[in-house]
Amino acid sequence: MIKLAIVGVGKIVRDQHLPSIHNTQLFEVTATASRNAQLDDVPGYADIESMLAGQETIDAVALCMPPQYRFEAACAAIDHGCHVLLEKPPGATLNEVNHLIKRAAAKGVSLYATWHSRHAPAVAHCKQLLSKSNITSAELTWIEDVRKWHPGQAWIWQAGGLGVFDPGINGLSILSEVLSDDLLITESKLETPSNKQTPIAAHLNILATSGFNVDTKMDWRVPAGAENTECWQMSFETDQGKVALVEGGSVCLINDQIVFQDKDASRYVEYEAIYREFADLIKTNKSSVDLVPLQLVADSFMLGNVTLTEPFEV
Amino acid sequence: MIKLAIVGVGKIVRDQHLPSIHNTQLFEVTATASRNAQLDDVPGYADIESMLAGQETIDAVALCMPPQYRFEAACAAIDHGCHVLLEKPPGATLNEVNHLIKRAAAKGVSLYATWHSRHAPAVAHCKQLLSKSNITSAELTWIEDVRKWHPGQAWIWQAGGLGVFDPGINGLSILSEVLSDDLLITESKLETPSNKQTPIAAHLNILATSGFNVDTKMDWRVPAGAENTECWQMSFETDQGKVALVEGGSVCLINDQIVFQDKDASRYVEYEAIYREFADLIKTNKSSVDLVPLQLVADSFMLGNVTLTEPFEV
Repeated sequence: MIKLAIVGVGKIVRDQHLPSIHNTQLFEVTATASRNAQLDDVPGYADIESMLAGQETIDAVALCMPPQYRFEAACAAIDHGCHVLLEKPPGATLNEVNHLIKRAAAKGVSLYATWHSRHAPAVAHCKQLLSKSNITSAELTWIEDVRKWHPGQAWIWQAGGLGVFDPGINGLSILSEVLSDDLLITESKLETPSNKQTPIAAHLNILATSGFNVDTKMDWRVPAGAENTECWQMSFETDQGKVALVEGGSVCLINDQIVFQDKDASRYVEYEAIYREFADLIKTNKSSVDLVPLQLVADSFMLGNVTLTEPFEV
Repeated sequence: MIKLAIVGVGKIVRDQHLPSIHNTQLFEVTATASRNAQLDDVPGYADIESMLAGQETIDAVALCMPPQYRFEAACAAIDHGCHVLLEKPPGATLNEVNHLIKRAAAKGVSLYATWHSRHAPAVAHCKQLLSKSNITSAELTWIEDVRKWHPGQAWIWQAGGLGVFDPGINGLSILSEVLSDDLLITESKLETPSNKQTPIAAHLNILATSGFNVDTKMDWRVPAGAENTECWQMSFETDQGKVALVEGGSVCLINDQIVFQDKDASRYVEYEAIYREFADLIKTNKSSVDLVPLQLVADSFMLGNVTLTEPFEV
């Protein structure tokens, strides 16, 4: 059993990380660090420094706090000789993650930048379908009600919190997984509320280098009573018909007929896969850091044409 | 002599590329492609496609158009089997440059992302001084009058044109050259005129991973009559005194005393160095693409807290 400490005990840790870790039977949670929360029956510390000093053995650390606070904790964990798992996005900037790659390599520990949505049940099936198709155009639509899904998360509205790209990067992580193309942002329109620092909506054009465009829309604004407009999906017009991946990667369709839906899948399928891969990386002394989704987001900001919109009250 | 074609015949090509190319005696300019301009005595084409089709032999291409138009031309040149030199910045997005790296490698041609300011006369001297110093803090200041230096350049104000980062990235390219640290953007305040798409000013905090901060200011606004406030400089507080690199990397000082100033330097020293390196890369079948300066800019946008300021008339 790998002795694992968790830093940043929030909703995603309780909902996903803990049951998934338990199911894998590969890790034992031996400590936590979090400003405001702790777990029953596990030593809890206020910060990672006191946790690393106070615990005799921590093999690995899962960093689940907001991205703006992840870099310093990752440095502390690496320098202590711990393997490090980064929740998505792996950091607030590209250069900090590039530094972590070098720092982990120099220390000989495994660094794992996770993209949980890539492990959704139907992603691999969709990827295989697309590998045998010629794609002519595509759409990616990621629309959710920020008030429903991100209550109390002030950090998503602060610089570095990525705004609507916080969920949207999950779509980009799937898109870059199912396509063998390189993906390039060629147009980016961002809408940012005048009282916030991060966008509430994004409309991108993404060029796939085999020669088709992915019309990409992300939006956090869902009018009251319009909950059925929420969606987390992408679709591809191909010579085999219209291939779609909906419900965040859970269901794959061809011409609106379901062709893959894993009804037996555990609700923890994504995070179980992540922790199994983390254990493999540790065992084989490897790291896995794919920066493409975060680069797409950085490029969207750099190329972004920002429109300030009316103040948004959460 | 390497047969070189130039795409995008503007001010920088006439002022720097052509005399520098001539001085190296390593290249022969055999064609140009440009929408509105051409050179005497050299076949001129309206676009790169007709140039590549119309000329029998082009060994290498220098791409000097605005970054928003560079990617397609680079793909065409690489696919034609030409070595490619990219003016700075190497592209409008990170992922497009990453794609060019792969595409050039697959075709077996050299790709060279240039950073001309790194070849300024005093940069190497400053780098050596700093390598023997302990730095405690630093400042980077890049202030110039946009109306004076960028007349008629509409593209710098359009999405992808980078705004004040177009000159500022020169400072970042020097900073990342003279320091052995990794550099991380930890704070970014951007000011964007309400009638423009790119920032007119940026105030960054950059963390150097050995543990000091670089207070970084870029500004394109110089009040009439205040031309003496223009500057392109950086300074470092060290245990050896205050090391400064001023005039865009031309002069190095310690405690305000000049310690290096290459009075004999040709005004073409930066671009001559670039073309000599390009010839070396071609000869040794290598590429050189350092994305760090562009990543710092992308991170500044992604982490940016944008303030819309009053409309700016050029």
